[in-house]
Amino acid sequence: MTPPREKTETRPTIHIKKMAIDTYRENVAYLHRECPLYRAEGFQALSKIIIRANGHHIYAVLNVVDDANIVSPEELGLAAQAFHQLDLPPGSDVTVEHAGTPPSMDAVRRKIAGERLNPEDFRHISRDIAENRYSRMEIAAYLVASGQTGLDRDEILHLTRAMTESGERLNWQEPMVVDKHCIGGLPGNRTSMIVVPIVAAHGMVMPKTSSRAITSPAGTADTMEVLSQVELSPEELYRIVRQERGCLAWGGKAHLAPVDDILISVERPLGIDSAGQLVASILSKKLAAGSTHLLIDIPVGPTAKVRHMQEALQLRKLFEYCGDRLGIHLEVVITDGSQPVGCGIGPVLEARDVMQVLENLESAPHDLRQKSLRLAGRVLEFDPDVRGGYGYGIARDILDSGRALEKMRAIIDAQGKPLAPFTLGTLTYDVCAQEAGCVTMLDNFHLARVARLAGAPIDKGAGVDVFKKLGDPVNIGDPLYRIYAEFTASFNFARTLVEHATGYQIGARDAVQRQYVEF
Amino acid sequence: MTPPREKTETRPTIHIKKMAIDTYRENVAYLHRECPLYRAEGFQALSKIIIRANGHHIYAVLNVVDDANIVSPEELGLAAQAFHQLDLPPGSDVTVEHAGTPPSMDAVRRKIAGERLNPEDFRHISRDIAENRYSRMEIAAYLVASGQTGLDRDEILHLTRAMTESGERLNWQEPMVVDKHCIGGLPGNRTSMIVVPIVAAHGMVMPKTSSRAITSPAGTADTMEVLSQVELSPEELYRIVRQERGCLAWGGKAHLAPVDDILISVERPLGIDSAGQLVASILSKKLAAGSTHLLIDIPVGPTAKVRHMQEALQLRKLFEYCGDRLGIHLEVVITDGSQPVGCGIGPVLEARDVMQVLENLESAPHDLRQKSLRLAGRVLEFDPDVRGGYGYGIARDILDSGRALEKMRAIIDAQGKPLAPFTLGTLTYDVCAQEAGCVTMLDNFHLARVARLAGAPIDKGAGVDVFKKLGDPVNIGDPLYRIYAEFTASFNFARTLVEHATGYQIGARDAVQRQYVEF
Repeated sequence: MTPPREKTETRPTIHIKKMAIDTYRENVAYLHRECPLYRAEGFQALSKIIIRANGHHIYAVLNVVDDANIVSPEELGLAAQAFHQLDLPPGSDVTVEHAGTPPSMDAVRRKIAGERLNPEDFRHISRDIAENRYSRMEIAAYLVASGQTGLDRDEILHLTRAMTESGERLNWQEPMVVDKHCIGGLPGNRTSMIVVPIVAAHGMVMPKTSSRAITSPAGTADTMEVLSQVELSPEELYRIVRQERGCLAWGGKAHLAPVDDILISVERPLGIDSAGQLVASILSKKLAAGSTHLLIDIPVGPTAKVRHMQEALQLRKLFEYCGDRLGIHLEVVITDGSQPVGCGIGPVLEARDVMQVLENLESAPHDLRQKSLRLAGRVLEFDPDVRGGYGYGIARDILDSGRALEKMRAIIDAQGKPLAPFTLGTLTYDVCAQEAGCVTMLDNFHLARVARLAGAPIDKGAGVDVFKKLGDPVNIGDPLYRIYAEFTASFNFARTLVEHATGYQIGARDAVQRQYVEF
Repeated sequence: MTPPREKTETRPTIHIKKMAIDTYRENVAYLHRECPLYRAEGFQALSKIIIRANGHHIYAVLNVVDDANIVSPEELGLAAQAFHQLDLPPGSDVTVEHAGTPPSMDAVRRKIAGERLNPEDFRHISRDIAENRYSRMEIAAYLVASGQTGLDRDEILHLTRAMTESGERLNWQEPMVVDKHCIGGLPGNRTSMIVVPIVAAHGMVMPKTSSRAITSPAGTADTMEVLSQVELSPEELYRIVRQERGCLAWGGKAHLAPVDDILISVERPLGIDSAGQLVASILSKKLAAGSTHLLIDIPVGPTAKVRHMQEALQLRKLFEYCGDRLGIHLEVVITDGSQPVGCGIGPVLEARDVMQVLENLESAPHDLRQKSLRLAGRVLEFDPDVRGGYGYGIARDILDSGRALEKMRAIIDAQGKPLAPFTLGTLTYDVCAQEAGCVTMLDNFHLARVARLAGAPIDKGAGVDVFKKLGDPVNIGDPLYRIYAEFTASFNFARTLVEHATGYQIGARDAVQRQYVEF
């Protein structure tokens, strides 16, 4: 029921109280049942309300309280996130009214009915989501509807534009700003932390802003945080990139495409994924981050996010179609996603792998080095002065000469020392082979899950260190991987999981499943 | 992340505290950020958790508290609904663990991908929803997926069975138990309160259990509550029906198809509707209520739930297909849904209309009387002793002779006097015609919305009293309807709405849109 617009009447006010309750991305407000406002407005628990003051407003979900010690009948309690968004001192006077269904839900209902939406519809949906007018169930309805009926490629284009416009945009004042992005699903795979220093050492501008892990055991931001600070304001980023040509920061402080973060907070726990939403999500973030040239990495493998070459090709076309029309120079590479890249899974372990590669150590994971060099080579070829096919050689020279390591140290210095010294968890458990043979299959999902249960990414020292990879010979009792944990409860969770399944298949040498992917 | 099953380990316990916070249909638990359990388990705000004690468990959503005055680090706070569901004394010891995604979400994801689900899938989904394992966004995903890809008619059958099995079933110990149900969308239309006394007076068993209004201005339960008590236990219902052959009660106390209530609590605010869900919802409730014979009323009209005859016919086939396979004798009638039935909209006003019809008053709304007699006639024809086509005449005799009124009084006595005397709201406002002519269109949705804003159904004396119906001649200044309200804020809401639109169209006599529906 949408409330009518009020004309002359002035509404009664109530003053706000901050409640130290963390409700994550949901705005929650608390009203006492005996509050005169509650009765008069006919609110019910879980009603959506608009809270207004000084021309500013927020949306919230209402909880009804029967205990004056929690909230008195004279106050409106606001949980931490709602209080923060309203941004007023405690005790401020506000008005409260029914919020009703966001107007753009009409467009979502049309999508549910199979209709095609226009640019205006996507703009309205984005604006309403950015304003927190959508409840989580309304967002779920939108996501399922647009995933299922499917968005056609023009709709994805409109959606990307609308999501980009929902937030701030970074402006690096540079003619060429390069970036790379992996669509995810592969544990380890921290190539960005090697590609950025190589490309920046070459002199190209590569300001990498990443997210934190949501369902994976580590994101680039979580891993970089082991080495330096990552929560930097746009002004700090501008300064660092002017000085070093590159950075490796968390994107959250820059408010880039905030709608994307809200959608992801529903999409991930639901475990639903759609190609259209994926493309719009990545491109809107990159456009907002000011990228002009973008390399997209799509790993393909039986336990990766994309399982078949055909699917990868469809996704590639979609990226290309949208990228071209959004004025971003975009290239897509399809890579081997049949197993984790590198050895470590979890922030401290992955940071170790990255530094070993940058330091050119003998022990450095070869696959992480190779993949990073190939990706860096492709990014370097965005430079008009680099001849096609010569990027890889240049990248290798920069890495082998130690210039990449030097650049990484400079970036770490510029971003600031880490907030705490993060070390490996002290609780360890080796998962060993029960039979002899060759590793024929590694389950990316299972290893990621073990690392998550062990505590990653919240416990930075938790995770999994992989000893055996595809094709490696093993004997009975050989350790396949080691679990690291910081806390006993998490340690036991992870151990219980591996009792049921290791995530490995051991078999004959000729049964090794290899995904041959060239780029 | 699904938690592994624990084997031998015993988990740490925490004692529960009741929090007087009403979170409606959502279980919410509160844990202090400094609580050792919180840290060890790696919970985050909005994590889903399982709370266990004595072999009993509930699911809840976690809110994280930073104020020991709300919840101390030694306690787990439970909001009212969660506390009630767990059903343990305050201070009881419980364990808490990650709940993860409900296992049947796999089936929902398959449905999103367009697959057909089997009976087992629907049983698992129903069980998980009944156990509160689904968050509201997961329910939204399920509803959109099954509405959009569509359920085929066998899937609807499976879903109906699964939903029926999710709760209790009433057993009237009678060979024939009749019922009627309107799919809704028409304001007024309180025919059940006339049909039940007629049919019960004839001697057939008609125990009517109804819901309360969710998005409409009054349900049968809300209206009956003006005349008698409606919150009756199954035992009380058995006693009343043994004595009177009929009842008019709220179904909520009998736990019939509880999954249906949960689905509706998400479906309605989202404003999404699917034929499959509608049929499964109605049939599962009726099966659980022990009905053997059921008359379904589908009103068709430009502002009704079903707008075209073709749609009504599709729905009729679907009801027939499922009803036949579920062993319920089912008949469908398609009726005129072009305007409200009766004059009053809102509990007190609708109760007035019903009693006028039963009392055979001159002032009784003719359309409500006619429609009730037709429906009652069709229900009476379920009786093998009633010759086809003779039901209407029998119904009219029972009504005209005063036997229906007598039966209604007996049912009211048996159910008990109302909890309070409900009277019409004292704030009134007449909405008048701005032009002369004939009423050519009445907008059901708009009138329902005016009545809702005026306070119905929570304020029983609030609503709309309709003076002019389709085809009636009007002069400038003639009152079209009167708004009744009990509280000023609601009164002003309703008045502001009608300033923009009355919900009436006035035009030439020959422009009257009539839906000719025979049954």
